[in-house]
Amino acid sequence: MTVSSFDHPLLSGFLGDAETAELFSAKADLDAMLVFEAALANAEGAAGIFPAQAASAIEKAIAGFRPDTSALRDATARDGVVVPELVRQLREAAGEHGKHVHFGATSQDVIDTSLALRLSRALALFAKRLSALDKVLADLDTRFGQLEVMAHTRMQAAVPVPAARKIASWRDPLKRCRERLAGIHGDVAILHFGGAAGTLDKLGDKADAVTEALARELGLAAVERARHSERDGVAAFASWLSLVTGSLGKMGQDIALMAQSEVGEIRLASGGGSSAMPHKVNPVGAEALVALARFNATLVGGMHQALVHENERSGAAWTLEWLILPQMTVATGAALRIATELLPGVSFAD
Amino acid sequence: MTVSSFDHPLLSGFLGDAETAELFSAKADLDAMLVFEAALANAEGAAGIFPAQAASAIEKAIAGFRPDTSALRDATARDGVVVPELVRQLREAAGEHGKHVHFGATSQDVIDTSLALRLSRALALFAKRLSALDKVLADLDTRFGQLEVMAHTRMQAAVPVPAARKIASWRDPLKRCRERLAGIHGDVAILHFGGAAGTLDKLGDKADAVTEALARELGLAAVERARHSERDGVAAFASWLSLVTGSLGKMGQDIALMAQSEVGEIRLASGGGSSAMPHKVNPVGAEALVALARFNATLVGGMHQALVHENERSGAAWTLEWLILPQMTVATGAALRIATELLPGVSFAD
Amino acid sequence: MTVSSFDHPLLSGFLGDAETAELFSAKADLDAMLVFEAALANAEGAAGIFPAQAASAIEKAIAGFRPDTSALRDATARDGVVVPELVRQLREAAGEHGKHVHFGATSQDVIDTSLALRLSRALALFAKRLSALDKVLADLDTRFGQLEVMAHTRMQAAVPVPAARKIASWRDPLKRCRERLAGIHGDVAILHFGGAAGTLDKLGDKADAVTEALARELGLAAVERARHSERDGVAAFASWLSLVTGSLGKMGQDIALMAQSEVGEIRLASGGGSSAMPHKVNPVGAEALVALARFNATLVGGMHQALVHENERSGAAWTLEWLILPQMTVATGAALRIATELLPGVSFAD
Amino acid sequence: MTVSSFDHPLLSGFLGDAETAELFSAKADLDAMLVFEAALANAEGAAGIFPAQAASAIEKAIAGFRPDTSALRDATARDGVVVPELVRQLREAAGEHGKHVHFGATSQDVIDTSLALRLSRALALFAKRLSALDKVLADLDTRFGQLEVMAHTRMQAAVPVPAARKIASWRDPLKRCRERLAGIHGDVAILHFGGAAGTLDKLGDKADAVTEALARELGLAAVERARHSERDGVAAFASWLSLVTGSLGKMGQDIALMAQSEVGEIRLASGGGSSAMPHKVNPVGAEALVALARFNATLVGGMHQALVHENERSGAAWTLEWLILPQMTVATGAALRIATELLPGVSFAD
Repeated sequence: MTVSSFDHPLLSGFLGDAETAELFSAKADLDAMLVFEAALANAEGAAGIFPAQAASAIEKAIAGFRPDTSALRDATARDGVVVPELVRQLREAAGEHGKHVHFGATSQDVIDTSLALRLSRALALFAKRLSALDKVLADLDTRFGQLEVMAHTRMQAAVPVPAARKIASWRDPLKRCRERLAGIHGDVAILHFGGAAGTLDKLGDKADAVTEALARELGLAAVERARHSERDGVAAFASWLSLVTGSLGKMGQDIALMAQSEVGEIRLASGGGSSAMPHKVNPVGAEALVALARFNATLVGGMHQALVHENERSGAAWTLEWLILPQMTVATGAALRIATELLPGVSFAD
Repeated sequence: MTVSSFDHPLLSGFLGDAETAELFSAKADLDAMLVFEAALANAEGAAGIFPAQAASAIEKAIAGFRPDTSALRDATARDGVVVPELVRQLREAAGEHGKHVHFGATSQDVIDTSLALRLSRALALFAKRLSALDKVLADLDTRFGQLEVMAHTRMQAAVPVPAARKIASWRDPLKRCRERLAGIHGDVAILHFGGAAGTLDKLGDKADAVTEALARELGLAAVERARHSERDGVAAFASWLSLVTGSLGKMGQDIALMAQSEVGEIRLASGGGSSAMPHKVNPVGAEALVALARFNATLVGGMHQALVHENERSGAAWTLEWLILPQMTVATGAALRIATELLPGVSFAD
Repeated sequence: MTVSSFDHPLLSGFLGDAETAELFSAKADLDAMLVFEAALANAEGAAGIFPAQAASAIEKAIAGFRPDTSALRDATARDGVVVPELVRQLREAAGEHGKHVHFGATSQDVIDTSLALRLSRALALFAKRLSALDKVLADLDTRFGQLEVMAHTRMQAAVPVPAARKIASWRDPLKRCRERLAGIHGDVAILHFGGAAGTLDKLGDKADAVTEALARELGLAAVERARHSERDGVAAFASWLSLVTGSLGKMGQDIALMAQSEVGEIRLASGGGSSAMPHKVNPVGAEALVALARFNATLVGGMHQALVHENERSGAAWTLEWLILPQMTVATGAALRIATELLPGVSFAD
Repeated sequence: MTVSSFDHPLLSGFLGDAETAELFSAKADLDAMLVFEAALANAEGAAGIFPAQAASAIEKAIAGFRPDTSALRDATARDGVVVPELVRQLREAAGEHGKHVHFGATSQDVIDTSLALRLSRALALFAKRLSALDKVLADLDTRFGQLEVMAHTRMQAAVPVPAARKIASWRDPLKRCRERLAGIHGDVAILHFGGAAGTLDKLGDKADAVTEALARELGLAAVERARHSERDGVAAFASWLSLVTGSLGKMGQDIALMAQSEVGEIRLASGGGSSAMPHKVNPVGAEALVALARFNATLVGGMHQALVHENERSGAAWTLEWLILPQMTVATGAALRIATELLPGVSFAD
């Protein structure tokens, strides 16, 4: 079953990105959920909500836990979330201490915090890739910046400009995307912990202490209230992703235009072969950047639709995020990968 | 690697549809490509473009062909399409007759015709499911149509109406979607066969004969010209998909509203469990219908963006279709499945 | 106040279309609403719901009616629809017969039927323009079809093809859009008449007779049930609009690519001037076609979001249609106008 | 001609916002363009590019300038931009000094800087309105925060929570939007000044001095290079707008759900009247917030599509911005206005 190009055994080599996609595997998701449940047990044990030995027994049970994925799949079809059945299995695994597992938490705490942990890793990966790409662009500038290229406005030749200007117009938006990263990190690298209705009502006066300990252990920021229904953070993240892919798509579009047979301002070291015309070198990497840009520009609207979240938890809006956000993130990883592979093979013509 | 909810081992049981997804597996795609190549060899052999025995040798080679998928993956990353390497492998498999494989065709002929074959199957499946769903709705009408329910306009109680009116407002848009199917079938169930630049230049005066034989063997309509760059057919198909999911999403929204604790006009036989509140019955199926509707409503715009197709073949616009259309089709299959499972458990309250 | 480019005193000459925009003026909308109310009075008078002389008095009052638009504006801000205040003014104007005005109808009957009347006119206009454009394209084919142009696949020169092939790839999708018109006409040219909750409850056993007489007088189809909450018809219409603009956008993109300084396969008789570079001839018409295509491709998703319509009338989804559909229609009228003006000035180079 | 609800004489009272819309009137746009041209003349005169007295003559001519709007409209239809004809008229008005008008600048400098000036004003207005709205929400919290309301998760009653929690979930995303304002201001409040191909080639070594003086006089930031083709700033602004309207739409959705006849957790002081059911109080303001949220969520994707900007200036992508951004900004102004008017009339039920 490989509906998505990012999961597809053949297409994912072209359009996907293994390192980013790995963050959205079922295993990575479950692992992060287990990290949450273990950290929760520890924090609650430390706060005296239940005996510390129960916490370490739960931690140990989780360490050795192997989920029954077939039961998880069936239960997800029924419950619309994986967590109730996962918690049931965990409780069983924890034996007599099982009743303390997941205490005071709700499904969305587990799923959103798992996502926060993985999006934080995605941001770290993208920061690294943006740096690497900036170096590649700096190198391109060193090699060709002093050449002249024809500027084109409204699809017509205008006046010659230094290639450095062109390269800077690709590089600077990506620099600004890196500068926006700190704000976006603050939007997504947060603990989601609110319990059934977002008030941590079962934890009484220990709610703050548990929240802080849990956040600290997970390396996430503790925020005043679980953002179960406040989705501006993930929508801002999605917008940032699309700024990155849109900026790369602009570069891809320029490269495809400059590499046109009749223009020849750019040569590509390699390109796609054709089944009908062996003489052609197709700018498939550049085209992929455009496609991924338009893809994310399409999807970003869906993440903004999901801001209209009914009451304390909207199954519809939340599920819509699941359908969209992983893809947007992987599309961004893929675009960064493709750009970094493409540029070293770009030569500006004398 | 399971970026998409439709490919995800846990979520696809909730949000996916195995029968539709199967049409988009790499295997189904490759199989349909091989069907095209075999039929092409037969048609060209019959037209005397090469000896008939070469055609049967090719057909036999294809019947026993096992692709080297690792090489296909690598080549797709380079070429942006799977076909050049697939053809290379096929030619190798066909030995001395290899030079006749794929004669006069281009990558897009193979990929778009493979898609046409599989979308035709999707349409047949959806026609069947729409019929089955209509029966389920007819049954709902039989069971509850004579009851009164409160009509709500602008989120306020208005006046009582027969439940039959409500049910008809869910059923009729789906009936109209069925009526639109014939037109949509004409849009997608077509042979794409044009060669390098859409003119079948290598086939000379045998182009028409080969086209007609090929279309006949594949069960697709022969059209005057390959629609490599004319994408209105697939965009119309995508729009139809979103009409179906939007109509189902409206029904899902109504069911979720009517099943609200305070409204109680609808009871659900079963629903999703909660990890925090065991007393709840969550209308997860109804919510999934809303999510899938908003998902397709988001994606349909991307298929319309892909209408802006540069010249004789746009790698960017075509790739954008690949990223979007399979998902929209599976989302539609999933929404039809979910609705058909959900409705028998719906009871209108007296 | 000219937020929209289509209403803008300067930009609408470039991007707008006066003939289509006129259908969406407040005056055109109010006029069509009055036509509905007069026809309703006649149909109800003829059916004996009230004395025939009341109907003719109402018709006469409507003929001489001048709305207090300031009061309409204030009331719309309060009610979210113009109809309650319009009906109040009409009742006042009809004096003693006022109580029969709008009998059994609801706001959405008036507004949606007014829209149906005007969309029918838009479709007639577009059918005429598609015919005219087809003639312009046929003429282009006559003048240049026998020339050779270079086909470009994936942004690279491929092989030469007859210009006729290129022109046909612009013309055929528009022909298919014309063929789709009959179905779309059936989707939108319908009477919306259901009363408060869609059941025409106040008309008793005369509901069918009034509906049929009303539809006949208005030149619209009577359908079994008012489609207050079944919005597949307008979403299908919007999808069709975007198929038209997308097909024109593809042509615009091709023209801009072929008119590039370095390619020179197309010359434009005239184009946009530049404030900085007097030597340039910018392909502004071709670019506008691309922009309008991407605009409608963006908006079409919103019309599909509006399919998720709560219960018997969703103020939110319905209002969303108002924000989107007029613009999409005018963008389509503008694209047809621009294409028809642009093509006679196109010359293919020898 | 009133295609847009925001320009519509009747609907704009409901859905529009006069104060924001005024920023997008043709007059406001032309005025800001004249401010740019006058400041440019001053900066260039001060830098010695031409005599200072020419600069003051130009400034004076601009002060008394009355555009021939009919000629501007015609020229815009031809040129795709208003600037060439505007500059022609200005040069004529400046007589012998006319040749110095617009020296070294290009159309996009004028248009984008005019937009930057007006978007800066929009941001200031929105900052003020977000503050005012925060006070209204604080007041709502004071009046009702201590009451209990039922939390609803997945459209089902969950557990009671303090109304303060609910109100905070509306207020906090808007606070975060205010915190994001500084970054967005930096994205849009910039001078666009690059000349024909973005290199200010005609200004020689005085380019930096003119740029800095011009930015200072206009109250905008000078940036290293004109961002003619780097559109991340406006796309980030559009994303922010949609975060605001999406957050308000979530509040509107909650209010409509809580005000349902069967739920009754919220009473509205006033609401929309119905033409068919005088007893109803429709939550039209709340519904409008949802509609405007979904509208901006639809449009934001188009602004991201416009990131794919060809070479040094894309007429297509730039025109697409014109079609979208003003509407998104006014939709945001309208949503802020509606929310601020709606909330004082909201009462939570005991």
